[in-house]
Parts: sequence; C-alpha cells; structure tokens
Amino acid sequence: MSYIWGKNSVNEAIKAKRVNELLISDKTYISIAKKERLRYTLVTKKELDKIAGGNHQGIVAEVFEYETYDLEDIIRDHDGLIVMLDGLEDPRNLGAMIRTADCAAVDGIIYRKDRSVHVTPTVAKVASGALEYVKIVEVTNLVETVKRLKERGYWIVGTDGSAEIDYTSLDYDMNTVIIIGSEGKGISRLLLKECDYVVKMPLLGHVNSLNASVACGIMLYEVLEKRSNR
Amino acid sequence: MSYIWGKNSVNEAIKAKRVNELLISDKTYISIAKKERLRYTLVTKKELDKIAGGNHQGIVAEVFEYETYDLEDIIRDHDGLIVMLDGLEDPRNLGAMIRTADCAAVDGIIYRKDRSVHVTPTVAKVASGALEYVKIVEVTNLVETVKRLKERGYWIVGTDGSAEIDYTSLDYDMNTVIIIGSEGKGISRLLLKECDYVVKMPLLGHVNSLNASVACGIMLYEVLEKRSNR
Repeated sequence: MSYIWGKNSVNEAIKAKRVNELLISDKTYISIAKKERLRYTLVTKKELDKIAGGNHQGIVAEVFEYETYDLEDIIRDHDGLIVMLDGLEDPRNLGAMIRTADCAAVDGIIYRKDRSVHVTPTVAKVASGALEYVKIVEVTNLVETVKRLKERGYWIVGTDGSAEIDYTSLDYDMNTVIIIGSEGKGISRLLLKECDYVVKMPLLGHVNSLNASVACGIMLYEVLEKRSNR
Repeated sequence: MSYIWGKNSVNEAIKAKRVNELLISDKTYISIAKKERLRYTLVTKKELDKIAGGNHQGIVAEVFEYETYDLEDIIRDHDGLIVMLDGLEDPRNLGAMIRTADCAAVDGIIYRKDRSVHVTPTVAKVASGALEYVKIVEVTNLVETVKRLKERGYWIVGTDGSAEIDYTSLDYDMNTVIIIGSEGKGISRLLLKECDYVVKMPLLGHVNSLNASVACGIMLYEVLEKRSNR
C-alpha cells in the first residue's frame, strides 16, 4: 500500500478502483466516499500534512499497488508460455487466471493498459496470493506486442469458438502465447489475424462459450500435458 | 419466479438467499429489507391478499426457483459423466461449473442439500443460461449417493493435491463421477475413501490449489479429450 493525495489524483485512483481507504480532513469529501462505498477516516489537517506535506487539498487515499514487468522479463529461449488477455472485463476472471498462471508456471500475463481490467484488491484476493509470483506486463498495443513476440520466436495461439482446429491437436512444442478473448466479444479481429493458430474447445451443450478463466485453465493444462508427454 | 408469504417462510428464503424482491404492506419489515440489502416495494394489504389470500402477515417474497432432478434422471448405461461437489462455498464457482458442465455435456451435478452452496440468482447469472440445461441433483448424503452410483456401474474419481496419480493417466473410458472438493478443505475423508481413483493436477507454482471451477473445467475437458481419442 502507498498514499496519493489531491483531489484529481484521488479521483483518478477511485475511477481505477485502486483505492483501499480515504483519509479526509475536508468534510465535503465524505459524500464522495459514501457514493463510491469506500472506507474513510476523518483526520485532522495536520495528520494529512504529515503524510503528504501540505498539498493534499484535504484528501489522501491509501492505494493498492503491485509490480509490473517489461516484456523482456517474461521472454524465454525455449518452452516459453505466455498468456495474453484481449479486453477482459471481469476482475474475478483476471484473479482466477493469475492463480491458474502460477499453478501452470506461466512466464507472464500480458494485457492492455487502460482498456481492460487491471489489478485491483478484488483481483488480488481472488488470485489467492499468486499475484506475488506471476509477472504482469501492461502494454499499450497488443498487436505490436504480438509482432515483437513472433520476432522472438513465439507462436501465437488464439482461442475462438468458430475455429476449425481443436485445441488438443497442437503439440505446443514451441514458445507459445495463448490469447484469451473478452467475455462477450472474444478476440478482436486485428489480433486474430496475427495468430499462427486459432483453436477451439468443444462446446457440446447450449451455451456458446466457456467462462474465460475456465477456458484459460483448460488451454494451459493442455499445454502442460502435451509438453510432459514428449 | 414464484411467491411465498408469511414471516417465517420469508425469513427462511432470505437465509437461503433465494429472495429476489420483497412486497411489504406492514412497514415494520422495511428494516429487514434494508438490513439484508433486498429490493422491496411498499404495497397495500389488498394487493398482498390478491397474491397470498390473506395469510401473508404483511409480507410476500418473490423467490427464485429452479428445477432439481432425481439421481435416476442422470444415470446412464455408458459414457456417463457426473460432477459431484463436496462442500463448495462460493456461488460464483457453482455458476461457472454449471456453465462448464453444459459445455462438456455432463449428465448432471450432484451436491448436498442444506450444507454447501445452492442455486441463487448469482449462481444463475454466472451460469449464463446454462442452468436451464444442466440437471441439478440435491442429495442428503454424498457417501450413500456414491455407493449407489458404484452399484450402477460408475467409477468414482476424486481430485486431491496430495494424490499420486496424474489426472491425465486415466482413460475415463467408463461411467465416471468427478468429485470436486471445497475451496478450502478439499474432499472429505469419508468420501475420499469411496473413490476408485484419486488424481491430482500438476501445481508447478507457489499457490497450493487451483480455483475449484477451473479445476473442474480441466478435469471435464480431459475426460472429453480421452473419450474423443479412443
């Protein structure tokens, strides 16, 4: 945890759902805390001065922090395994995927900064401690990132319900990026075009897709199975 | 949706989280609605009379309903596939499992009445419509149910982190019950003793278990993979 202060910074952090608690000396902020259902503590201006040194405008937020990594940190020469998320929206799905990624010894998870979900206290909780161990890489452009990974010897495997290849038919015997699409829309068209393979999981029932974190788990454990059998 | 009425019945339904909305003519119930964070509408005594015929004590609840099945309804002669949940607690996990069960064409999901999670509006929502298609069997005793399923030709496969058999080493070429344990405690000892096989999924990282609904998905899709390859 760390602190940020001042009306604008705190507002941004509230929007990003990164605020754990508000420390308020100016009572006009109480209505914001209540509206956003955030814990808050009324403190004196002096106490805020101690934390923020005077420029706090009467409000300080304790925010949730986590470490992110560079793309280079998660690239390997062989047996690489990376998960890329395209537009995921549910923080519980992200949390479950981080947990699965740790279990499957994934090198890292890539998602787009500012568009999809990001790590919040809910994500951390659902991840059951795995956030400490899984490398998160936030990038600005997924297509550019995929191109860089291809140059570095990675094969790109997208998942899509309308694909023709079954996910079990690949041997995953190469550096692999698994792309999981958003809950509603799947993988975007531009990103699908960059995939070396697009695979599907059998859907034998009535609903037309698996939960994103379940699909991610099935894919990753298929990679582990194929790699352990070679 | 259907209606129930009277203080005690409504209280039980609130405890079971089956209430969608309260209809109140006696204002003393408003505090209960607020405390339980339930939607409520103030109506006249006459309107409640129309629904309940006079014995409502001033309160009617619109409750969430779903159909359950008997064990016999989900038993098959061959290629049977049943999921049994032992003490699951998170309704979102149950919802995700129902969705996966539909995708994997599972014959039904069995859990213990009154002890573990049950179907609530949250479960139905997370299941994304699959609740309409997956047969839910509520039983009073899981061990007795397993014994009955064994008599009917089912093999019982439990999942446990400390097992010695890898989940990929079985061919699942028989009527199969997959048992998934609770999020914290896994499968109870009495039930583990009834398992024909106890299998594990590789955990290569730091956290010591997969999310229950992810584990369920990996198991079910392994069964599908093995059965499609024979």
